[in-house]
Amino acid sequence: MKIEQICELMAPIGRDAVAAAEVLARADASRKNAALRAAAAALRARQAEILAANARAVRAGEAAGLSGAMLDRLRLDPSRIEAMAAGVEQVAALPDPIGTVLAEWVRPNGLRIQRVRVPLGVIGIIYESRPNVTCDAGALCLKSGNAAILRGGSESHHSSTAIHASLVHGLCAADLPGACIQLVPTTDRAAVGYMLSGMTDSIDVIVPRGGKSLVARVQQEARVPVIGHLEGNCHVYVDRAADLGMARAIVLNAKLRRTGICGAAETLLVDEDCVATHLAPIVRDLLDAGCEVRGDATVQAVDARVRPATEDDWYTEYLDAVISAKVVTGVDAAIAHIAKYGSAHTESIVTDDPVAAERFLARVDSAIVLHNASTQFADGGEFGMGAEIGISTDRFHARGPVGVEQLTSYKYVVRGRGQLRP
Amino acid sequence: MKIEQICELMAPIGRDAVAAAEVLARADASRKNAALRAAAAALRARQAEILAANARAVRAGEAAGLSGAMLDRLRLDPSRIEAMAAGVEQVAALPDPIGTVLAEWVRPNGLRIQRVRVPLGVIGIIYESRPNVTCDAGALCLKSGNAAILRGGSESHHSSTAIHASLVHGLCAADLPGACIQLVPTTDRAAVGYMLSGMTDSIDVIVPRGGKSLVARVQQEARVPVIGHLEGNCHVYVDRAADLGMARAIVLNAKLRRTGICGAAETLLVDEDCVATHLAPIVRDLLDAGCEVRGDATVQAVDARVRPATEDDWYTEYLDAVISAKVVTGVDAAIAHIAKYGSAHTESIVTDDPVAAERFLARVDSAIVLHNASTQFADGGEFGMGAEIGISTDRFHARGPVGVEQLTSYKYVVRGRGQLRP
Repeated sequence: MKIEQICELMAPIGRDAVAAAEVLARADASRKNAALRAAAAALRARQAEILAANARAVRAGEAAGLSGAMLDRLRLDPSRIEAMAAGVEQVAALPDPIGTVLAEWVRPNGLRIQRVRVPLGVIGIIYESRPNVTCDAGALCLKSGNAAILRGGSESHHSSTAIHASLVHGLCAADLPGACIQLVPTTDRAAVGYMLSGMTDSIDVIVPRGGKSLVARVQQEARVPVIGHLEGNCHVYVDRAADLGMARAIVLNAKLRRTGICGAAETLLVDEDCVATHLAPIVRDLLDAGCEVRGDATVQAVDARVRPATEDDWYTEYLDAVISAKVVTGVDAAIAHIAKYGSAHTESIVTDDPVAAERFLARVDSAIVLHNASTQFADGGEFGMGAEIGISTDRFHARGPVGVEQLTSYKYVVRGRGQLRP
Repeated sequence: MKIEQICELMAPIGRDAVAAAEVLARADASRKNAALRAAAAALRARQAEILAANARAVRAGEAAGLSGAMLDRLRLDPSRIEAMAAGVEQVAALPDPIGTVLAEWVRPNGLRIQRVRVPLGVIGIIYESRPNVTCDAGALCLKSGNAAILRGGSESHHSSTAIHASLVHGLCAADLPGACIQLVPTTDRAAVGYMLSGMTDSIDVIVPRGGKSLVARVQQEARVPVIGHLEGNCHVYVDRAADLGMARAIVLNAKLRRTGICGAAETLLVDEDCVATHLAPIVRDLLDAGCEVRGDATVQAVDARVRPATEDDWYTEYLDAVISAKVVTGVDAAIAHIAKYGSAHTESIVTDDPVAAERFLARVDSAIVLHNASTQFADGGEFGMGAEIGISTDRFHARGPVGVEQLTSYKYVVRGRGQLRP
């Protein structure tokens, strides 16, 4: 499409979103929740339609030569649709964040000040092949009182369109504007560029959901604030004072429970003072479980199956059954390694020494730092924060899991009785 | 300077700031406060030196033909230096935000989760002619554990250099790195561009302090997050149920107490249902106090001194003894006017009708909304939040007064006893 056509297509989407956001900001919790529950029901009722659209998308993806992993992300089945519907119902069950009084105080002159939670406005979400993002992101934005403009990947466009229809059905059933959740009706990549830089009057925040190159493009081009979700190059550090059984269990769980999530461990650091006792059992557990281990010289000496690690490995988020492993000279060296190579996402220390633990928790500058727990807990649901739109590795606005509360702003409401400023 | 020279100059500033930020993030409150108190003492001890540097700057400004208002912003005297020193001591007296546990909970599996306040990192501050920003911004960044890179206007460079020396003296006295607060040693405008787009690895946040064109340039060019401080086109709405005496006092105070601050009222909206009783006294108060009034036809009919308002007036932040005035058909029309023309900064309703008040407070989408109080209270100090670096009109990260707490991020600290994710 020419830029004029993109503009003609997107400008009304932006205007409608702003108008819908105004209505949504004032909608009470029961109306938003009614829309969510009606959307969940519509997802279940339209399962056949959604699966048919998805089957077309999968066939097109196969013809286009998409990888098996890509096709798996794209593919829906009845259980995935049920999971989406149940997820929407879970969002409906969360407390409504809007209108919450975050803080409240009275000044000596009698002014009563409240900090009150309000929506951000219009959120643009740019994502790739997972059609469930359409559902999750739409539901989270609605719950937090924000209008959403969704732009999914071209592979998932048919599936997303079918899912989006259910969300709009829910909105209409609750007498909310359908434009509260809009899906960009073109797969032209120019629409993404237009969202990033041409809609500063209508889009308040952009959330990219996808791989490193998508997030990098968004951060490079966006002229509005971005809630970024960069990679999770997560570390587990096994300290000299680690309980061996706990360390073995945590490393295995952190690496292998699910390898494709951002909280999966990618590098194992072992204190040189426990190499003799701890290194071999942990490394062999991983190898025996089918994990490739890439290690420094000491780790290679443990087992012939360990491959040599290169400098690049310390920077790499494998998202696969691969781990890099290194021996370090204690907690400070572990902290320094993480500062140099990490992505400030999630790191864990295993130790029974409270001094080492507190040092690690205080000095590792990541969104999530854990003591004696698996990095796979890096998840809004596991934190008790409900569904999330991702884990932010930014320091600005939202850090860590981004749930409904993180998709809000606040304002100050001040009540007086005629006070003048002296 | 050529871009290579700017890069050669700025790259070490960025590196030193990152290293200083790491030290500062771990510095305890007493050390930071000692640095602030020593800086305040140095400002007083070096008064003659600072005034001499300022005199040179003022002479250069006069020679360059700066306006009287610009020269006034630039000029220091003993009382302004004392005010700076006292301001730094007030920042020292604020509670330390870093390390505060913002929230804390225990999950059913026993994981203990804390959300803990941490610094943002390195803050770049780009400002214009007021040399006191060097001092205020440096002190706020230090207190909040952030390293600061300050880039003041060329007019204030001599004065800022002298003030900056006192801040560095304070840092050294407290055994903190001098690079915690750095002043860019060139007035070349290319350095600003480099801070905005060339230092994404070292600068975490940019704060522009200055006029509309500076803020617009920063928001346009910045490749890192910006805490923006756009204009304050603030409104006072006098409702039909307003107490006349209170309305007169609030309008006069909101407009004229100080006209050059962002919380000064710029537009008066009067409910048509109280035009007969309220409009004339309020407008005559303003005119008699020397304020120019630009009004719609009804307002012009009140007094021959009222000039006609144009469409542009409703958008204008005068920052001067000028106000635009308009009759509106009740609270909803006032809300609609503010939504169309306002800058989402600060607005006040004067009324004894609680329903109208709550409607205005809920529906006006500004950082600060007041009932029966002057807009001039829009100030971190008046809110009891301590010194501020500005009033944010953004919705993202910080909204309203930006004090030490708003210059922070947080991280999640999770303590377990071997928990694995099922």
